Amino acid sequence: MSIVTQLQNASLATSFARKLTPVQKSEILTGIADSLIENIAIILSENLRDLERMPDSDPKKDRLLLTSERVADLATSVRAVAELPDPSGHLLYEKELPNGLSVQKVSVPLGVVGIIYESRPNVTIDVAALCLRSGNVCLLRGGSDAIFTNQCLVDLIRRVLSSYNLEPNMVQLLPADRKFMPELLTATKYVDILIPRGSQQLIEFVRDNATVPVIETGAGVCHTYIEASADLETAAAIISNAKVSRPSVCNSLDTVLIDRVLANGLLKLLAPKLAHYQVEIFADGDSFAVLAELKYPNLKAAKESDFGREYLDFKCSIKCVDGIDSALDHIRTYSSRHSEAIISKNEELCERFLQEVDAAAVFTNASTRFTDGGMFGLGAEIGISTQKLHARGPFALEKLVTEKWVVRGQGQVRE
Amino acid sequence: MSIVTQLQNASLATSFARKLTPVQKSEILTGIADSLIENIAIILSENLRDLERMPDSDPKKDRLLLTSERVADLATSVRAVAELPDPSGHLLYEKELPNGLSVQKVSVPLGVVGIIYESRPNVTIDVAALCLRSGNVCLLRGGSDAIFTNQCLVDLIRRVLSSYNLEPNMVQLLPADRKFMPELLTATKYVDILIPRGSQQLIEFVRDNATVPVIETGAGVCHTYIEASADLETAAAIISNAKVSRPSVCNSLDTVLIDRVLANGLLKLLAPKLAHYQVEIFADGDSFAVLAELKYPNLKAAKESDFGREYLDFKCSIKCVDGIDSALDHIRTYSSRHSEAIISKNEELCERFLQEVDAAAVFTNASTRFTDGGMFGLGAEIGISTQKLHARGPFALEKLVTEKWVVRGQGQVRE
Repeated sequence: MSIVTQLQNASLATSFARKLTPVQKSEILTGIADSLIENIAIILSENLRDLERMPDSDPKKDRLLLTSERVADLATSVRAVAELPDPSGHLLYEKELPNGLSVQKVSVPLGVVGIIYESRPNVTIDVAALCLRSGNVCLLRGGSDAIFTNQCLVDLIRRVLSSYNLEPNMVQLLPADRKFMPELLTATKYVDILIPRGSQQLIEFVRDNATVPVIETGAGVCHTYIEASADLETAAAIISNAKVSRPSVCNSLDTVLIDRVLANGLLKLLAPKLAHYQVEIFADGDSFAVLAELKYPNLKAAKESDFGREYLDFKCSIKCVDGIDSALDHIRTYSSRHSEAIISKNEELCERFLQEVDAAAVFTNASTRFTDGGMFGLGAEIGISTQKLHARGPFALEKLVTEKWVVRGQGQVRE
Repeated sequence: MSIVTQLQNASLATSFARKLTPVQKSEILTGIADSLIENIAIILSENLRDLERMPDSDPKKDRLLLTSERVADLATSVRAVAELPDPSGHLLYEKELPNGLSVQKVSVPLGVVGIIYESRPNVTIDVAALCLRSGNVCLLRGGSDAIFTNQCLVDLIRRVLSSYNLEPNMVQLLPADRKFMPELLTATKYVDILIPRGSQQLIEFVRDNATVPVIETGAGVCHTYIEASADLETAAAIISNAKVSRPSVCNSLDTVLIDRVLANGLLKLLAPKLAHYQVEIFADGDSFAVLAELKYPNLKAAKESDFGREYLDFKCSIKCVDGIDSALDHIRTYSSRHSEAIISKNEELCERFLQEVDAAAVFTNASTRFTDGGMFGLGAEIGISTQKLHARGPFALEKLVTEKWVVRGQGQVRE
């Protein structure tokens, strides 16, 4: 058994996807949004088949769940993608050589985009919409948990494509069976880019085994450093927001670094805010002492492995540091280069932090929760890239393209 | 034994490289250029030690050879790099959110750039100059053939850095021993990007074994398709130029696709031009018959494996095709997506070729030999990227950067 036919069909479909006109793209996306709404009943019943196979205790259950409201939100987001500017077809550079040769660099679709994800069925719709909008073919490899839901959603998209007499293989669902993964990861002949979206384990597995180029998204070990000059009320509000507003996402706070001189004052303000959400704190020696004194209810002594850990939960680690150098050292060692913040009234130190911290997004006096394609004005995002090539930070529609050099001559040869 | 200390030192040196001022960068590069000229005698004597170890029959010997003139050319190219615009520090995007948060996207150095190359010592100087210009640290892993030359050149660069009281570990030569390769290829903690530069084998080895992100450069299986409406004189001149002007480079022609109706007329014009350079031709059935009739001196019947082959020599394959669809099919199957050309007077078919061929550079009525950073106006290049992420086509100074989102707040938190 092999998925080679699907891979080949995807590759062949690129010539159709590349030629979609703006009107066609808009029609397709509107058609998909309409079809989602028309088919809510069948989508929910297929989703139920998946839900019934998952134990109630599984924390992934909420991610898998679709409701009428969530399907309506998906349709809305597809319509929003239709409104975003097309990232392909832009003239990026132009030069006429002295010999008359016309040289242009233009943005063009990547070709075949493969997405490897877990139990979230919204990824199926979001990614298909973004790929179609940018003239790309997509191969969706969702988890087995969501197989009935994904099959239903992809069938629906393919029916819309067929209804416009367009090539349905522009969107394909790959089998969830793990045995096909190696073939996908090494399909350099057919697949132009792979995007793993999900747990750190999944991302590392893909990165370590793929020969197709990979864009890593997702894992964020995010720090916030409270410098000695910080306003304590502001600091406590930001830390609390960064931790509790949505702990399950990658831009949420994992480690608080507190200038030692602020430990008493800041923790006194912060402890009740975090205790309110029953945040479990893994504290280093000094902050542990202060929090224990404050009778913080959910306190553990931090082990080495509690730093550099992505919690994705109502948990965080706290450490006291001596000044910015010590904070920068800690971040350099433990950061996953996602989002890092400093809270300080000292502008010079703020600018130093922004310059020296090597991360996709760096903040002064704000919550790391702002790292987000929508927030930054890019529209829907596929994830947050923590690598440095091609896309860094919110990985959105604008980056689903590559470049092509187009050279027009009249018989020119090189000396 | 391990290279971890060198890797760590490179990583630590990024904070120095990132902070180099324009004046410092200019001083360093001028210093390196001066030092190359001052030390020609010692460079040539170290180069001789390498040359003496290589048999005269080795085709790599010319690539390894340095002469006074070649060293002077290297110094000139370093001075040219000093004149190129700095790709880092550019404001790429800016937005103020309704809540007052200032969001900017800026270009910043990549960090640690690792280059894996073979026997060309000019790569050592070119890459070090481009990395320093763009604020990057470089790790140079040249071949064992050139070890004395490379050591001499890197010592010279490091002495220049030390003479300005700058961190010499911004440029390091890694040992050529193959046993250290796995450590380099998987050094995701210390190395931000790997660029293999050399043979197809080297590139594939790096791509297949690296977990550090790779930019592939180099291999070009380049086609030129002569469409039925082409002017035959123009076509023959372009093909000949694309093949013989410098066959050892990646943008040279490998396969000529001739519309069958032109075979007789075109080959009659082309044969003497290629014969003059003793070009060996691997011809398919129909073109073989014509060339045999013309008594072409160096003619072989093409095997399947002679298509999709990068010759890098005075050799090429020729195939007759029936129209543009057949040419596009052949290119889709055999191209390495480097540089592809059509010769035609039919504008509609020219534009179709430009749109449908998926390659870094596509040409109408010109030689594929023009694919070059210098020619396209980008300055010195590290190579030609045949992948789609980050850099495609000439990979030059402008792409030795990544992006960073810089967000400045006054206490903002997310709803």
